[in-house]
Amino acid sequence: MTEPITVAAFAGSLRRKSHNRGLLRAAAELAPDYMTINIVDLAPIPLYNGELDGPNRPAAVQEFLNRLNVADALLIACPEYNYSVTGVLKNALDWASRQPTPDQPPSIQGKPAAIMGAGGRYGTVRAQQHLRYILLHNDVKVLNKPEIMVVRSGDAADSDGNIIDQTVRNQVEELVHALYKWTIQLRK
Amino acid sequence: MTEPITVAAFAGSLRRKSHNRGLLRAAAELAPDYMTINIVDLAPIPLYNGELDGPNRPAAVQEFLNRLNVADALLIACPEYNYSVTGVLKNALDWASRQPTPDQPPSIQGKPAAIMGAGGRYGTVRAQQHLRYILLHNDVKVLNKPEIMVVRSGDAADSDGNIIDQTVRNQVEELVHALYKWTIQLRK
Repeated sequence: MTEPITVAAFAGSLRRKSHNRGLLRAAAELAPDYMTINIVDLAPIPLYNGELDGPNRPAAVQEFLNRLNVADALLIACPEYNYSVTGVLKNALDWASRQPTPDQPPSIQGKPAAIMGAGGRYGTVRAQQHLRYILLHNDVKVLNKPEIMVVRSGDAADSDGNIIDQTVRNQVEELVHALYKWTIQLRK
Repeated sequence: MTEPITVAAFAGSLRRKSHNRGLLRAAAELAPDYMTINIVDLAPIPLYNGELDGPNRPAAVQEFLNRLNVADALLIACPEYNYSVTGVLKNALDWASRQPTPDQPPSIQGKPAAIMGAGGRYGTVRAQQHLRYILLHNDVKVLNKPEIMVVRSGDAADSDGNIIDQTVRNQVEELVHALYKWTIQLRK
């Protein structure tokens, strides 16, 4: 029997027609039945402030931490702004590196993860490099391969940001299967 | 006659007692008369969303861009979260890399800047490395030296986050003077 897993997926762009959000939707569509990909919106998460952190942190943040905490793996779509990850994504990860409750580890601690990105002149290669480094802090196990860095992403998407290019969709499907295998491997 | 300059200064932490905010206050105190250091709070700046960007962007953002735009130089206090800049700082820089009006360059484009950081086990060295890379995108001219990376910053600050350690204060004073010289040099 194939063990089911749940993946918490989020993108560093808040634009509805973002190609990175499109990558997440493609992943959810292409995932096999035994993988549930839950797309989490980062828009309601406020700027990190240590004074607001702790058991009484904002409800939107607590819900985000809880959703990460129950996930078996993470899937991150990483746009590139200013040669790095977006502030939106980094801010979410800053919260995600906190403990949801005092008796639990940080929400993303040690989890398997896969990353991908679309856009920018070089397909988000610089942003993904920073993202891999950032995730070291919480020992997030980021899959090395396949790498998905979609250059000229406008050519791969329709006007709503849905990924329609078959080569990219195949890459996403491959990534999703690799993430499944990685998650099961690390579970043993 | 000494030419006056104006510096827009901001910190990547929103905590009132943050040692990085303390570094900014020390810089403002120690700056010579001919430098005006305006500390800008990043708390009111919402998460970047391309759909909200443009001439009708949120008022807090527009005010931030205007303040950067009129500044001769930038001073950034850079805490380290998760081996990188904070989401709060990156988000502000994502907005700051936009044009305040269609006929103006991006607010931080080509400006002289100085960076410093306090805290973390290694004094924010990893975050500052990412920050220098991020600022390349807008050709921000970041001063190479002096470097200020305050380890064990709790020992350098009082309980309100004011920097009281004389060695650190001397470093900040040196940085401020170096930023002045750099700004005048680049103006010619």
